Amino acid sequence: MASWPLPSLKMGGNSFGERFRVTTFGESHGGGVGVIVDGCPPMLELDEALIQTELDRRRPGQSRLVTQRQEADRVQIFSGLFEGLTLGTPIGMLVMNTDARPGAYDNMRDVFRPSHADYTTEAKFGIRNWQGGGRASARETIGRVAAGAIARKIIEKAAGIEVLGCVTSVASIQAEIDLNSFTRADVEADPTRCPDPDAASKITEAIDLARRDGNSLGGIVTCVARSMIPGLGEPVFDKLDADLAGGLMSLPAAKGIEIGSGFAGTLMTGREHNDPFIPGPEGMPKTTTNNSGGIQGGISNGADLLVRVAFKPTATISSPQVTVDRENNSQILEAKGRHDPCVLPRAVPMVEAMVCLVLADHFLRQQSTNI
Amino acid sequence: MASWPLPSLKMGGNSFGERFRVTTFGESHGGGVGVIVDGCPPMLELDEALIQTELDRRRPGQSRLVTQRQEADRVQIFSGLFEGLTLGTPIGMLVMNTDARPGAYDNMRDVFRPSHADYTTEAKFGIRNWQGGGRASARETIGRVAAGAIARKIIEKAAGIEVLGCVTSVASIQAEIDLNSFTRADVEADPTRCPDPDAASKITEAIDLARRDGNSLGGIVTCVARSMIPGLGEPVFDKLDADLAGGLMSLPAAKGIEIGSGFAGTLMTGREHNDPFIPGPEGMPKTTTNNSGGIQGGISNGADLLVRVAFKPTATISSPQVTVDRENNSQILEAKGRHDPCVLPRAVPMVEAMVCLVLADHFLRQQSTNI
Amino acid sequence: MASWPLPSLKMGGNSFGERFRVTTFGESHGGGVGVIVDGCPPMLELDEALIQTELDRRRPGQSRLVTQRQEADRVQIFSGLFEGLTLGTPIGMLVMNTDARPGAYDNMRDVFRPSHADYTTEAKFGIRNWQGGGRASARETIGRVAAGAIARKIIEKAAGIEVLGCVTSVASIQAEIDLNSFTRADVEADPTRCPDPDAASKITEAIDLARRDGNSLGGIVTCVARSMIPGLGEPVFDKLDADLAGGLMSLPAAKGIEIGSGFAGTLMTGREHNDPFIPGPEGMPKTTTNNSGGIQGGISNGADLLVRVAFKPTATISSPQVTVDRENNSQILEAKGRHDPCVLPRAVPMVEAMVCLVLADHFLRQQSTNI
Amino acid sequence: MASWPLPSLKMGGNSFGERFRVTTFGESHGGGVGVIVDGCPPMLELDEALIQTELDRRRPGQSRLVTQRQEADRVQIFSGLFEGLTLGTPIGMLVMNTDARPGAYDNMRDVFRPSHADYTTEAKFGIRNWQGGGRASARETIGRVAAGAIARKIIEKAAGIEVLGCVTSVASIQAEIDLNSFTRADVEADPTRCPDPDAASKITEAIDLARRDGNSLGGIVTCVARSMIPGLGEPVFDKLDADLAGGLMSLPAAKGIEIGSGFAGTLMTGREHNDPFIPGPEGMPKTTTNNSGGIQGGISNGADLLVRVAFKPTATISSPQVTVDRENNSQILEAKGRHDPCVLPRAVPMVEAMVCLVLADHFLRQQSTNI
Repeated sequence: MASWPLPSLKMGGNSFGERFRVTTFGESHGGGVGVIVDGCPPMLELDEALIQTELDRRRPGQSRLVTQRQEADRVQIFSGLFEGLTLGTPIGMLVMNTDARPGAYDNMRDVFRPSHADYTTEAKFGIRNWQGGGRASARETIGRVAAGAIARKIIEKAAGIEVLGCVTSVASIQAEIDLNSFTRADVEADPTRCPDPDAASKITEAIDLARRDGNSLGGIVTCVARSMIPGLGEPVFDKLDADLAGGLMSLPAAKGIEIGSGFAGTLMTGREHNDPFIPGPEGMPKTTTNNSGGIQGGISNGADLLVRVAFKPTATISSPQVTVDRENNSQILEAKGRHDPCVLPRAVPMVEAMVCLVLADHFLRQQSTNI
Repeated sequence: MASWPLPSLKMGGNSFGERFRVTTFGESHGGGVGVIVDGCPPMLELDEALIQTELDRRRPGQSRLVTQRQEADRVQIFSGLFEGLTLGTPIGMLVMNTDARPGAYDNMRDVFRPSHADYTTEAKFGIRNWQGGGRASARETIGRVAAGAIARKIIEKAAGIEVLGCVTSVASIQAEIDLNSFTRADVEADPTRCPDPDAASKITEAIDLARRDGNSLGGIVTCVARSMIPGLGEPVFDKLDADLAGGLMSLPAAKGIEIGSGFAGTLMTGREHNDPFIPGPEGMPKTTTNNSGGIQGGISNGADLLVRVAFKPTATISSPQVTVDRENNSQILEAKGRHDPCVLPRAVPMVEAMVCLVLADHFLRQQSTNI
Repeated sequence: MASWPLPSLKMGGNSFGERFRVTTFGESHGGGVGVIVDGCPPMLELDEALIQTELDRRRPGQSRLVTQRQEADRVQIFSGLFEGLTLGTPIGMLVMNTDARPGAYDNMRDVFRPSHADYTTEAKFGIRNWQGGGRASARETIGRVAAGAIARKIIEKAAGIEVLGCVTSVASIQAEIDLNSFTRADVEADPTRCPDPDAASKITEAIDLARRDGNSLGGIVTCVARSMIPGLGEPVFDKLDADLAGGLMSLPAAKGIEIGSGFAGTLMTGREHNDPFIPGPEGMPKTTTNNSGGIQGGISNGADLLVRVAFKPTATISSPQVTVDRENNSQILEAKGRHDPCVLPRAVPMVEAMVCLVLADHFLRQQSTNI
Repeated sequence: MASWPLPSLKMGGNSFGERFRVTTFGESHGGGVGVIVDGCPPMLELDEALIQTELDRRRPGQSRLVTQRQEADRVQIFSGLFEGLTLGTPIGMLVMNTDARPGAYDNMRDVFRPSHADYTTEAKFGIRNWQGGGRASARETIGRVAAGAIARKIIEKAAGIEVLGCVTSVASIQAEIDLNSFTRADVEADPTRCPDPDAASKITEAIDLARRDGNSLGGIVTCVARSMIPGLGEPVFDKLDADLAGGLMSLPAAKGIEIGSGFAGTLMTGREHNDPFIPGPEGMPKTTTNNSGGIQGGISNGADLLVRVAFKPTATISSPQVTVDRENNSQILEAKGRHDPCVLPRAVPMVEAMVCLVLADHFLRQQSTNI
């Protein structure tokens, strides 16, 4: 029989969600990046402006803290809308790549950038678009953020859930934030997206320093969902915390996920960690503490959802690095291109988008059968 | 049209994996618990003894450190085998419940145990099997461990990958372990499954103390996969780290997941964190450090896989607790039943099973198309 | 790297349905056959008797017209039930194989039965359980019929839909049946499951003749769903007719599917074929004809669903047949074992089960979002 | 809790295939229609010209036999390609709508066209783009045909399989065609895509007559796949014939599917219908007849695949029709717009596309595990 010497294959790894299903496509340098949203309910008011608002929060060039790649990232909606309402059909959205300067990557054609996806992509596929990060680029998250804007609207409108993230640490700078009361205005007030002004100021300084030093920094994004409803999540594999962990760990540069007490919870005893129930309003119990982070047995209990995501320092730095080329020969790499010395400010809308996608997916799974 | 006043619905959340797909079933107190494995390759040598070996590592009553519920947990294989070989058809496995003492749970009929799934299950489904934890019981993991034994055999036989976990901390007791060299024999040498004898001794003492105090403890399981191959994982949503995070967070009591440097990585700079490539054997590069934990851009790079899972202290304690009943009235709960003061020793085979399931799933996705 | 010379692999082909998902397992000769139902709503009254009623309609030995293999086919429910109600968790059901006489198949070890799955199974998997048809045996449909009994209960209770099939032809014997009025009692009144007594009598005679002649017969099962509701089915790939066609064609021996006018519709003009709308009750239109078979654009329109399934004559006959063995040498096969000279009477509950599974799946997808 | 009075919801019905997964999007009148192909192997040569060739076979206005809607249907590829090769990442393709004349549909705003999807779409979604058929339009198949062109290339290049369809009947005009020998050149030689010149001439006449009469015609497309390989298809639900039946029945206007002998096979006895095996080349058996249509037990046996699809007469006719409006009042509809009096010639590339999609999906599932 015929033989076809392909090094590897892949399947359907570009979709997320079962009931509210998003499929992203597009490379960082190529025609464009986009997303198909399948499973959006019909008759939801929607327009490009709603999507654009979220995209503007993640786009490059929005402040001096982030990469200076200049992309307007204007979204176009190709399908699924009619007279300002969703049709219940797939919503296709596309952002063209306009500022791609592929020449800036010429030296990456044969050399693997350390701690990037260059080597692993080539090990898997035998080919890569070396003019940037391809699918591994944070540019892929445009599709997630665009779809997340719709997901957010669904859970806000139908259930009143508010999803809000912020930067709680960069390197060793820890912010002091009251997670019960900070607002989106607080977050957006500073380009760092850290609502503790003292910490924000230190973070700005640290990022500037890292940039001048050709270095990069990591940090933590914390995200809450308020006005949660109980009952979201499935009891075994599709637990709400499992889907959050999987979705958030799929963000570029994520290395750790915590729900509620997280790793610190391992230092507590059961008596300290258990969240006592007391009678709450509308006939539903509430808890007096929230070590559970709003999820018990994989299902939301109505308390605020609480997740933390650790992002490593950006892999792209402008210092010489030891690496190899495609022929497995030693090389010294001098990075070019324009990149973020710290991904954290732009990571906030990405984290929020993934939380919204997971919540909308589980919200739409969870319905009464009255017909 | 007809109306059917069901409080909620669920869909397909009992399956895991796309290519090596497991579906678990069964409640902790009822006929039995089991698993269907769909997607196992044909002509793999398999028998019940192989499965039983892993089940014996997770079963209750195996040492004085764990719950004294006496279940032999004998597995029966109902399908998918012929003359000692797999057929490529679904492998059905069942463990009957033999020691269920439902009477021990009578006081749980109307009262929600704090930080258990009792309330959330009822909020979601409107009904629960109150004679135990139902699907939220750690007993559900029997199916995962049984399926994981087959997954382990596939990745060992076909790719030589070794998956090995151990307890690295309980409460504030931190073990000192060389993750590059500890062996399964080291792990199994002590009932704590902590291969640092000093730490193991302290952990034993702490668990005994917690039990006598009617309290419980949490801790961390670390799991490595050695002799990894590059190319496992997909570049976007189905990243290897994302699937590991999702799978591991779905284990009962898991609250945090780290890959490689994890949260500590946020304290490093890019220059420190990036793993330099140097020429390795067989024409493939290797890294001189492993902050990536063996995964870059969601795809394995051939270095050891490294994951850490935080488990909260067991929710079941034998101290009086403040809670509410189904009528939203305050109650004081005195727990009965037999439970683990510390889930960590039994969590090791569960973590290993999930890692094996994820690796087998991605390994079987990743094939050449020579035909 | 390691090499593992497996001839082929498969993935997840043992599940059906997205929202009401069934996974069957088990070979015809082995431990047993069964099914896991994932996605059944909670608090539905259910017991083994309900399942058994349907299984008794498909079991062998129920009349002299069908195979005399004596299997009581007693179903056991292992999970998902509590105090007579479904829990919303997976329902595991198992029927043990009791009358397997594998010795009867000894001559099939190395010889491929014509128009059976023997050769193709071996071509795909490199191994087969030659002691019967394995997964290709009609015995696999036990799981479908058991799950179908639950699906039927859901659509009957929640939407009032009635699913009813019958034999409308065997070989050239065509029954005259009023599809608007025949009842389940009419169908069950005769072992042929043909509600036209004259045709039933001729069919009985023809089957007896075929059996004595060592030959076999095919025919057509027609199935209606009455009291349909509009809106079931999706507009593109998951059309209601597409899912019915796929599900029904997956039944053993099925070779053709028609919806509404079917192949005869190609002989009509658009003016004749179009179903005029007139005002109907409850503010909904109805059609004066039903060439659409109750489905327009892949979505139910409220008219009766109408499908026809062609079953080829049973492949097992007791006449000598030209074939080859595993070494590709010519052989003459003399079939042994006990088989149906005509599958049609037992195919009726199988067809009904698949229609119920498809309708329940789409019914449960189709819900309001009031929460 | 909040209430959201949506009439209905849907989920993920816009994707097809597990391993080679296509997701179509777009309405007939709106921005455009397109498709995302996820799961295409890397390093396959691909360009827009390959896609365009197939699209040109299905586009309107290609001959006087089909609708005169003038759409160039130029495809743009937005992602997944690099230097003329596939990357193994999602391939996004879009065709803009250029000739949409929504004004032509003004009278459809409130009136349901008989045997169209207008009423059922509105019953399901509560909203529809009344400026055409929306997702139910045959225009949606642009995405299928574009994706099918890639699928065809995979199975041709990797396995040598040739997929070829033709019109075998229109109304009562039956073509005489040797299914073993007709070629694509034969099919494309006449705008009817019927390779029997006599029948083609009669079909042309009949279509012209129907158009002048404001009427429409149906017919049958037959499709073969030659140089098949054994082993494609799964033994239970994902049978090759089941996936073909489901995929083909999802085409607009399809009402019946046959594999091999189809409905005519019910008139044969087992002795006549069984396909005898004789020794074939390369150590594999072959059959002397092909009533199985190349599939046994749901798995290909290496013989030619043979399927037939019945298409009803086009629902759009230019004669007055009895119908109702959205208020359930009687109306007489006079259709406008430009439509096909007979869909058959354009249905050929659609049928071929679906067969290619199914074969590529199963081909890519079916691989050795050598690694």
